[in-house]
Amino acid sequence: MAKRPTEPPRRSFLRRAAAVSGGMIAGGASAAFAQDAPPAVPEWSKSLGAPILAHPYGEPSPFEQNVRRRESPGLTRTPHSSVAFTPLQNLFGTITPSGLHFERHHAGVPQIDPHAHRLLVHGMVRSPRVFTMDDILRYPAVSRIHFIECGANTGMEWGNVAVPTVQYTHGMLGCSEWTGVLLSTLLDDVGIDAKAAFVLAEGADGASLTRTVPLAMALEDVMVVYGQNGEMLRPEQGYPLRLLVPGVQGVSSVKWLRRLKVGDQPWNTREESLHYVDLMPDGRHRQYTWIQEAKSVITSPSGGQFILDRGYHEIQGLAWSGRGKVKRVDVSADGGRNWRTARLQEPVLPKALTRFRVDWSWDGGPALLQSRVIDETGYVQPTLRQLREVRGTRSIYHNNAIQTWRVDASGEVSNVQVL
Amino acid sequence: MAKRPTEPPRRSFLRRAAAVSGGMIAGGASAAFAQDAPPAVPEWSKSLGAPILAHPYGEPSPFEQNVRRRESPGLTRTPHSSVAFTPLQNLFGTITPSGLHFERHHAGVPQIDPHAHRLLVHGMVRSPRVFTMDDILRYPAVSRIHFIECGANTGMEWGNVAVPTVQYTHGMLGCSEWTGVLLSTLLDDVGIDAKAAFVLAEGADGASLTRTVPLAMALEDVMVVYGQNGEMLRPEQGYPLRLLVPGVQGVSSVKWLRRLKVGDQPWNTREESLHYVDLMPDGRHRQYTWIQEAKSVITSPSGGQFILDRGYHEIQGLAWSGRGKVKRVDVSADGGRNWRTARLQEPVLPKALTRFRVDWSWDGGPALLQSRVIDETGYVQPTLRQLREVRGTRSIYHNNAIQTWRVDASGEVSNVQVL
Repeated sequence: MAKRPTEPPRRSFLRRAAAVSGGMIAGGASAAFAQDAPPAVPEWSKSLGAPILAHPYGEPSPFEQNVRRRESPGLTRTPHSSVAFTPLQNLFGTITPSGLHFERHHAGVPQIDPHAHRLLVHGMVRSPRVFTMDDILRYPAVSRIHFIECGANTGMEWGNVAVPTVQYTHGMLGCSEWTGVLLSTLLDDVGIDAKAAFVLAEGADGASLTRTVPLAMALEDVMVVYGQNGEMLRPEQGYPLRLLVPGVQGVSSVKWLRRLKVGDQPWNTREESLHYVDLMPDGRHRQYTWIQEAKSVITSPSGGQFILDRGYHEIQGLAWSGRGKVKRVDVSADGGRNWRTARLQEPVLPKALTRFRVDWSWDGGPALLQSRVIDETGYVQPTLRQLREVRGTRSIYHNNAIQTWRVDASGEVSNVQVL
Repeated sequence: MAKRPTEPPRRSFLRRAAAVSGGMIAGGASAAFAQDAPPAVPEWSKSLGAPILAHPYGEPSPFEQNVRRRESPGLTRTPHSSVAFTPLQNLFGTITPSGLHFERHHAGVPQIDPHAHRLLVHGMVRSPRVFTMDDILRYPAVSRIHFIECGANTGMEWGNVAVPTVQYTHGMLGCSEWTGVLLSTLLDDVGIDAKAAFVLAEGADGASLTRTVPLAMALEDVMVVYGQNGEMLRPEQGYPLRLLVPGVQGVSSVKWLRRLKVGDQPWNTREESLHYVDLMPDGRHRQYTWIQEAKSVITSPSGGQFILDRGYHEIQGLAWSGRGKVKRVDVSADGGRNWRTARLQEPVLPKALTRFRVDWSWDGGPALLQSRVIDETGYVQPTLRQLREVRGTRSIYHNNAIQTWRVDASGEVSNVQVL
């Protein structure tokens, strides 16, 4: 059993319910209140509330308006090719609300009429086909819970501690229940050539974002997706149709999907040769790093938060692996010298976020909080030192190093680098 | 493997993407298009889309505006004590989008300030306590996927075919990833009397909605919930705090939770003695029918839809049981004479919605579509005749009979009663 608080805890509600912007938080201590007297009957218990269907499509409470996607100012030159980050510090469980799922675009968000949208499948196939949305929706469907992580997530942490909160360090991350058609089903229908080895996916956005997917991967678990968390995709997530390549960096899950071409070689498109490549210590570029390796991060407490009380706190975070299921997560409060195994939220699903929780009692002194995931292949999340030994310090993409949050004696939590 | 379409399918995209209101649907046939010529490059591929953070909290595409909760006109006398139904015919997978989760209120939706909200736990306890939201959030958390079904769901089908679509027949149903504290954790902290046997839960709404929960159930898997699908509860779902009694009719999962009282007898409150009771054939009321027994419904094709083409269609639907996991779902296209076993979407979780799918080829003739669930206890969903033999026809609540949709030769799908 988890250790429980023995006195009224006062961890700030604000800390979770309101977003952390710029690293400052209001104190938010509870109003003084006699703990053993019945509370006064509030006004809302003495009146009628809002009528039904005040919101035919529901919205969060006005008290939650600070829980929102946020942009890191100056990250890109135009707002059409920028990033908005998921507020991981405010979220529960493993499903990312679609309205808070991170955004990353190369030419903004197109507004696509689903009746006019088409998907062309051609190249080394027996019967090239143009699919309408009606066609796609008529195929046998599958629904699966998978994470999407941008290959550049945590990219600002390679060289220095660039940003204060987990929203900015790890917030190019989301997890949804996706619904669509297995790409293998579509490719089976058009008939692929025996020499085919790759598939090119192209988006209908102004960037015509284009990525190569190996055919073996395409036939394994890649989906052509129209549904996200029970409803049609949101525009920022590719409405009305996108590719989903589970476990692979987000750019491969091409949004606003309009074309799939089957071929026998990778295409080396702009987004494969100039971007999403890793600059290695020897000065060479590594291309086609597909898989998002196992990674984890503590979301509470995390950078920008304040711990107001000594005593019991539940440390929480998220773990994931592009290669399958999370096997174990360990948590350290002393910068990696001692580790304890965390509880994993069930069900643990392959290529999906897994929430972990571990009990912690803060003694009021400095602490260095870290988490380390081990996936079902046995791969262990590396320290930043281990990752730098292989990758150097000039990369942008594919940083899955252990994250450290420092707690100081005032209770302030901040982003620090521990090699 | 599923059977695949061999010619361009044309099931109307509108049928899924737009809501079915009043039973009429636009035809929505695909635009004429040469299937082997590349599609013209659309305007949205030649321009910049919307900038990042056009919606800091995302919304559905404007093309989806008809996918919404809907009220059945005249169902209640005031809009503060009414029902808005989930558009099941438009949804995918098993997670219900929070913005489309059904609403049922007794005195409208209160707007509660989470900083002022309090939860009183008292009665037969050692240490009565008043909890702030800060207190609750500091406890060890759990996240679990469970359905909530109103006890009155499908109530209009007892005597006659009252409503045309699955939104109105079965739409008092949703399934979410809920996050909160186990009630057993809170009760352990306040210390319950050895003679305690029941817990009273009271809402902070104007109705002070109040329900009794048996202590054994309360200690098993009942949660005090603040999170829904990754974020704080929506106001219509009980923001900032609600009870969740998995597998039990929705009214027991008291929203806007402000009070829990431990006692040794049920309270027989208004909502337990006048409502949510079953009028049995012998004229007596049956009280405290807690569990939502196993039930299933086909959501596609379903009432109000039109099938535009003969040939392949995937029949889809939802199944659930208040007693645990769904074990099997069978589907009939001839009113229950012949049955085929459906595919179940993994993971199948206890007291959660399970989506089932089965291949079907429509020959253009009349058909009677039915689904029948069997849960892990071996319980088989009854026919309407079987249910009436036990329950008569004067009930409102707890109708879990097999639903029938008739397909006529024109392709129109409608709600019919098959005993």
